[in-house]
Amino acid sequence: MARQDAISVVGVSGSLRAQSCNTATLRTACDLAPDGMTISIFDLAPIPLFNQDLEKDGLPAVVETMRQTMAAADGLLIVTPEYNSSIPGVLKNALDWGSRGASHPFCDKPTAIMGATPGMGGTARAQTHLRQILGRLNARMINNPEALIANAPERIGPDGLIGDTPTRAVIQHVLTALKDLIEQHR
Amino acid sequence: MARQDAISVVGVSGSLRAQSCNTATLRTACDLAPDGMTISIFDLAPIPLFNQDLEKDGLPAVVETMRQTMAAADGLLIVTPEYNSSIPGVLKNALDWGSRGASHPFCDKPTAIMGATPGMGGTARAQTHLRQILGRLNARMINNPEALIANAPERIGPDGLIGDTPTRAVIQHVLTALKDLIEQHR
Amino acid sequence: MARQDAISVVGVSGSLRAQSCNTATLRTACDLAPDGMTISIFDLAPIPLFNQDLEKDGLPAVVETMRQTMAAADGLLIVTPEYNSSIPGVLKNALDWGSRGASHPFCDKPTAIMGATPGMGGTARAQTHLRQILGRLNARMINNPEALIANAPERIGPDGLIGDTPTRAVIQHVLTALKDLIEQHR
Amino acid sequence: MARQDAISVVGVSGSLRAQSCNTATLRTACDLAPDGMTISIFDLAPIPLFNQDLEKDGLPAVVETMRQTMAAADGLLIVTPEYNSSIPGVLKNALDWGSRGASHPFCDKPTAIMGATPGMGGTARAQTHLRQILGRLNARMINNPEALIANAPERIGPDGLIGDTPTRAVIQHVLTALKDLIEQHR
Repeated sequence: MARQDAISVVGVSGSLRAQSCNTATLRTACDLAPDGMTISIFDLAPIPLFNQDLEKDGLPAVVETMRQTMAAADGLLIVTPEYNSSIPGVLKNALDWGSRGASHPFCDKPTAIMGATPGMGGTARAQTHLRQILGRLNARMINNPEALIANAPERIGPDGLIGDTPTRAVIQHVLTALKDLIEQHR
Repeated sequence: MARQDAISVVGVSGSLRAQSCNTATLRTACDLAPDGMTISIFDLAPIPLFNQDLEKDGLPAVVETMRQTMAAADGLLIVTPEYNSSIPGVLKNALDWGSRGASHPFCDKPTAIMGATPGMGGTARAQTHLRQILGRLNARMINNPEALIANAPERIGPDGLIGDTPTRAVIQHVLTALKDLIEQHR
Repeated sequence: MARQDAISVVGVSGSLRAQSCNTATLRTACDLAPDGMTISIFDLAPIPLFNQDLEKDGLPAVVETMRQTMAAADGLLIVTPEYNSSIPGVLKNALDWGSRGASHPFCDKPTAIMGATPGMGGTARAQTHLRQILGRLNARMINNPEALIANAPERIGPDGLIGDTPTRAVIQHVLTALKDLIEQHR
Repeated sequence: MARQDAISVVGVSGSLRAQSCNTATLRTACDLAPDGMTISIFDLAPIPLFNQDLEKDGLPAVVETMRQTMAAADGLLIVTPEYNSSIPGVLKNALDWGSRGASHPFCDKPTAIMGATPGMGGTARAQTHLRQILGRLNARMINNPEALIANAPERIGPDGLIGDTPTRAVIQHVLTALKDLIEQHR
């Protein structure tokens, strides 16, 4: 495949914790990316709290970098924990910065969503909020299949990646759907 | 009324912008607090992005202060903008820190909600998300009346407070309902 | 306990199917009601589709009966399936009729929520919608514990009731919380 | 334009009331359909309450007709009131029937949403629920522009149609976006 045809996806994790099972899911997705797709991780830790007054002299440099990286990508992968029935403030804050201005990187962008929880929920509620937010931003979301990863810690192997076969298959199915959408979108 | 009977409410604004119409609404609420109630503002600007790894040596000092201030208060007032159909990351991030641990200041706490927008929406969608989050935290919310303040900038006077009479009445009604709930709750 | 002190709860199921695992959950709740509480089932099958034009000569008789039954009860128990990430139209239709007029039976009413699914979800999303709707109606909901019954069919015994011990315990915990709220409410 | 190229859209109103401002909005949309698009109304009044037991001998005839009509259409237009912060049971019930089985008419279907209220809200909350439900069904929704029609009754003329020029423009914009999506989709 020629270089210009390679599909580039930017992935973010809503958890900043080093041992996060969501970041482990994101790293696993990088590993399982289908042929012709590369997923690179953008770290949300350096993003400042949103404050419109900070825009007076232009967006903060790290925000500008995030926006350009996302805008240049063919697709997005958002992996989110669930805190208090919604997405983390960390993730929402990044979306708030990302959505500023007349044009933003989410509009019409093929976007896949995954989420992992220690317990049974699998981030069903957080993903609902995330889908509402991304719908408002007119992102093109993968709706099926969903990746709701319950009991996540026990699915992670000693290499820090999801080792559980059915969960890896779900991750692959979502990524394949994302690839199909990106190709249909071009 | 003896000092020990005074009702103390902590108010937060989900916007960090100096000229925010939500912070103006919060300041107006401080002014309009019914007899026997004092509303003090807690600024969310210094709260760091949530990262569970920061908890290893205890909560960050500013987070601990926020939690203790909220825990000591008889009630909470949350004033939220709407960004992308939800609450700001800034506010969700504060709730994420606030909700950590087995006991947290939101459980069973009388809580009032307000929101202001430049346009027509009045934060209806953001308040829906906020109510879901606070319901999960088992807060006691004022459901009626609602304070959905549309076209907010034109309601703000030169003193930076809401000057519009019907809007001031709505703010007062919500605060009176909060006072009633706190008194019934004691 | 004198008869006049007995707690009466009205329960509805959002599924009309005879073998519904949600109706089985409701029947199980009737069985497990704590001492001093009686749960009676109100069947939603005869409720017509909501049409405001039908109100011209007063509410339909079955709707009037539903409203009076609920108004006379000390508390409500709503057991809901999840269809398409929300509550069934059948249940929403009953709430639409029930909420008509200046006074309605949901306002300030202690209300417990349960839900059962054949799969993993346990009605997390349907309950989120239901809580938004009931919050708008100012019902007093039990927020903790939640009763999200996943893989429900395999928990039902030959008698058509939930036989699974941990699930029965969750049902009992919710009913005890409802009883406590009703007693505190009186 | 040859007959086979004409775009057919099926429209439903979530209100059964004869003088409904939502049904008036739907009729206005029929009038304002762009060249090459025809919108026909499917009445939800005869749809029975959903009951899976009714499926034993096949779907009820009216449900089968609704599904075939929707499946044959190039796009859908759903006009919804807001009852208790959500969509009417009448509309959800139709979606519940429509979504049954392995294949259903909503999957990948271009779908536009409108809503009207007597008050200020414009169905913002109902549309949020509707979008969650339709997202789960993998419908292709028009996200921009939104048609949130506040203070609807005063916008309706003596002919029972929306006469207000800016509101008619919003309706046209949504229909044009629907037409574009359908054409891109073919």
